[in-house]
Amino acid sequence: MKEIIAIIRMNKVNATKKALADVGVCGLHAMKVMGRGKMKVDFSVLDQMGVTEEIGGMLADGLAAGSRLIPKRMLTILVQDDEDVKKVVDTIINVNREGNKGDGKIFVAPVLDAARVRTGERGREAI
Amino acid sequence: MKEIIAIIRMNKVNATKKALADVGVCGLHAMKVMGRGKMKVDFSVLDQMGVTEEIGGMLADGLAAGSRLIPKRMLTILVQDDEDVKKVVDTIINVNREGNKGDGKIFVAPVLDAARVRTGERGREAI
Amino acid sequence: MKEIIAIIRMNKVNATKKALADVGVCGLHAMKVMGRGKMKVDFSVLDQMGVTEEIGGMLADGLAAGSRLIPKRMLTILVQDDEDVKKVVDTIINVNREGNKGDGKIFVAPVLDAARVRTGERGREAI
Repeated sequence: MKEIIAIIRMNKVNATKKALADVGVCGLHAMKVMGRGKMKVDFSVLDQMGVTEEIGGMLADGLAAGSRLIPKRMLTILVQDDEDVKKVVDTIINVNREGNKGDGKIFVAPVLDAARVRTGERGREAI
Repeated sequence: MKEIIAIIRMNKVNATKKALADVGVCGLHAMKVMGRGKMKVDFSVLDQMGVTEEIGGMLADGLAAGSRLIPKRMLTILVQDDEDVKKVVDTIINVNREGNKGDGKIFVAPVLDAARVRTGERGREAI
Repeated sequence: MKEIIAIIRMNKVNATKKALADVGVCGLHAMKVMGRGKMKVDFSVLDQMGVTEEIGGMLADGLAAGSRLIPKRMLTILVQDDEDVKKVVDTIINVNREGNKGDGKIFVAPVLDAARVRTGERGREAI
């Protein structure tokens, strides 16, 4: 049993929800998050521009420190097995990949057990 | 050390909080989520109604694609051992079970370590 | 691969974000949560005050049941290895430790895999 956590753009939630339903995955939760990705400064480009390493480092520090958190949506989807993980991850990438920074991140986390409140079912039956 | 994540109805947060305090579990976090459960179309019923499998499938697709996300609350509770897991899960089911769809879901996830910021305590002491 | 989840005061998000960037950790997500910590009643103090155990228990119950959830911020940070876990946890404690209740909690959870939506990269490369 695994949980897939995807951080995606706000305007991609409906398309992602639809695409997941199309592959048979209906259960999901969505929440608001503010996010900031990893930033890399390409020092070789700065070098070509004549910017010293010291200035480049200060620039990187400044960018990192001042970077705003951007509103995103976090989706969480519980699945039974690795086949489902692959299906969900591939579907989310297909819908959200635009080739730009901020397209999103996906994590897979272990889940030990699940329960459905309505019936009291546990484990596999509860997903 | 384990984390219990419960998705429940918005109007059940206070009763759940109270019931958990009554069994000695005071630490919890709550957040807003939008959720959609798994939907199943009962094809045997549709069959009796004379609905073809094709139409039934389209119906299921339409329901799934168009289904709204419903506002819910997510509670997270950190506990030490499996005995606590059972106590918390049973308590949440008792308070939230009405026998209807949307009553909620509970997951149990592993936690490797914890720290209390105020004291710097780690592990067992920090829960 | 591990996820660090920190529940901190709302007014500490910017300082924490800055401190994490200073140690080279730029990627993080923040979300609103409502939280309630564990409360302990010091029965030895109550005893000195002449409060019986029964009254003390009722007091503890009342405090627990009536305790409000306080708005907090939850930060999540994905890191590659245990060295990073230590760096991030120490940094968060340094910035947030005031010695008061409500300073915060930190959890460390396992992560099985990660993917970057923009490139489709998986695992180590995606963090």
